[in-house]
Amino acid sequence: MKLVTFTQEGTTRIGAVENGKVVDLNHAFQSLLKSEGKLRYKQIAEAYVPADMNGFLEGGEESMDFARKAIDFALNYEQVNGHKLVYAKDDVKIEAPVPKPGKIICVGHNYREHILEMGREIPKYPVVFAKFANTVIGPEDDIPYYPISDQLDYEAEFAFVVGKRARNVSQADALQYVAGYTIVNDVSYRDLQRRTLQWLQGKTVDGSAPMGPWLVTTDELTDPSGLEVVLTVNGEERQRSNTKNLVFTVPYLVEFLSGLMTLEPGDVILTGTPGGVGVARNPQAFLKDGDVVRIEIDGIGTLENKVKSIKEG
Amino acid sequence: MKLVTFTQEGTTRIGAVENGKVVDLNHAFQSLLKSEGKLRYKQIAEAYVPADMNGFLEGGEESMDFARKAIDFALNYEQVNGHKLVYAKDDVKIEAPVPKPGKIICVGHNYREHILEMGREIPKYPVVFAKFANTVIGPEDDIPYYPISDQLDYEAEFAFVVGKRARNVSQADALQYVAGYTIVNDVSYRDLQRRTLQWLQGKTVDGSAPMGPWLVTTDELTDPSGLEVVLTVNGEERQRSNTKNLVFTVPYLVEFLSGLMTLEPGDVILTGTPGGVGVARNPQAFLKDGDVVRIEIDGIGTLENKVKSIKEG
Repeated sequence: MKLVTFTQEGTTRIGAVENGKVVDLNHAFQSLLKSEGKLRYKQIAEAYVPADMNGFLEGGEESMDFARKAIDFALNYEQVNGHKLVYAKDDVKIEAPVPKPGKIICVGHNYREHILEMGREIPKYPVVFAKFANTVIGPEDDIPYYPISDQLDYEAEFAFVVGKRARNVSQADALQYVAGYTIVNDVSYRDLQRRTLQWLQGKTVDGSAPMGPWLVTTDELTDPSGLEVVLTVNGEERQRSNTKNLVFTVPYLVEFLSGLMTLEPGDVILTGTPGGVGVARNPQAFLKDGDVVRIEIDGIGTLENKVKSIKEG
Repeated sequence: MKLVTFTQEGTTRIGAVENGKVVDLNHAFQSLLKSEGKLRYKQIAEAYVPADMNGFLEGGEESMDFARKAIDFALNYEQVNGHKLVYAKDDVKIEAPVPKPGKIICVGHNYREHILEMGREIPKYPVVFAKFANTVIGPEDDIPYYPISDQLDYEAEFAFVVGKRARNVSQADALQYVAGYTIVNDVSYRDLQRRTLQWLQGKTVDGSAPMGPWLVTTDELTDPSGLEVVLTVNGEERQRSNTKNLVFTVPYLVEFLSGLMTLEPGDVILTGTPGGVGVARNPQAFLKDGDVVRIEIDGIGTLENKVKSIKEG
């Protein structure tokens, strides 16, 4: 499935994209249950396929199965008793698939060829750092550029979303704990990032984690390696690599991170960015108002956002 | 008020400590409303004084006022219609006052005398880094010591809790955005913290943020400066300073952080630790199974936790 969060007439709910249409998963499951004569359809749907992504992911494989049944039902009966189950994609606003992750964990220096071209050694341990949930925006949002920096930069990232509580999980079992994959632009204010030893202040500015366009579940994207990652700014290619070049793979990261902390459904892990970020170019090339940043990853799709300067005062 | 989160017979709710007793704020407010003849007492109480701390803090000053009225009511009528409103402190388990902060933001290198004694310069910007909510444990919990490190260390921290959504708030207005103060032990796995450039992996291990014993609201603790901070291990003094030595004060941090990101009710900010941490001693002195770490801060109280080795396999 391609899971989304979408807003329609002021209400934000989860859905699945099928043939350019958006299925309202909670309403579709309610209608399916109702058609089976279940009087407690609302409560059962709320329990298994709630309208928020974190709640839905907590339900695990069981909820995923119900969602699939709900999609089949909805595609046959687009509307039930005046209740709309399926929307044209253009009639809704697509939000970040996981609008409020409990954790956003980022991995630094993780693309092999980029590390080697910089003359660095392959690291023994992943560098990990944080963003908070205030950073998350969706695929139809602009990237806000606050007047606190001259060095706004992009970072194309292949990201995975945790689907099951994970603590001390081995690499062999790791993919069972992944709900799916998405794209995140780890937007970074480089001057703020570098003015102290710890990067957080340049990494967690509001709106600095565009995410989307959807969460592709692991039944559809079974293998997270071998996916081409390309980032362009105004159509000009700036970053290109492939997830086969990741030093620390998705299974490795699940094992490593779950050995430190309990990972929860809805946690989002960014696996690192290829070479070619603006700060490392010669001459340096930072983002400016109106720039369009586009990230494409095989098997997922495209995340495109425009940069918009914010005037404050 | 001294706000707590407590567990009684398996249910976790917020309360206020008065004379060694714990008032159940939501139940007390329900009973007050009922005594006024309000038929919607449950729903009104849920709206203004819900049983979880983040929800309660979102209500701001209005909810604080209702909580105060609820306390007065409960102390007069400890039990209403068989509904217990007040518990002896020993009959409940006190949890971390804010069990699930949206953000935990930590400040490094912030005690003036410690920076100078280390021969460093006073920094121009605060160093900030993150812990995630998986770290939070309460004042009656043991500090889990996972077998992934030989260097478990303590850090006494004076912490403030955000009480109102804050974005671009000036120092002059800052304290209006603070709900209150508490104590946090920023437990750190030093070897993990230092094996890469970014500290997160040594800072966000499960259970590494004992918090409590309560959240003292700003009407009771009006001035966050001039508070003595003392940490002992098994009764031996290891850290001592005073919040008057903070380079970056609470108002400064509210301005600085809210200039980067939107702070939300329930966000917890740790203001830094004085000199004397185990890793900086000569010889180094790390924590071990059974050690008792006690932090005392003027105007708040005492947070004491025992270290407990965890066997995994």
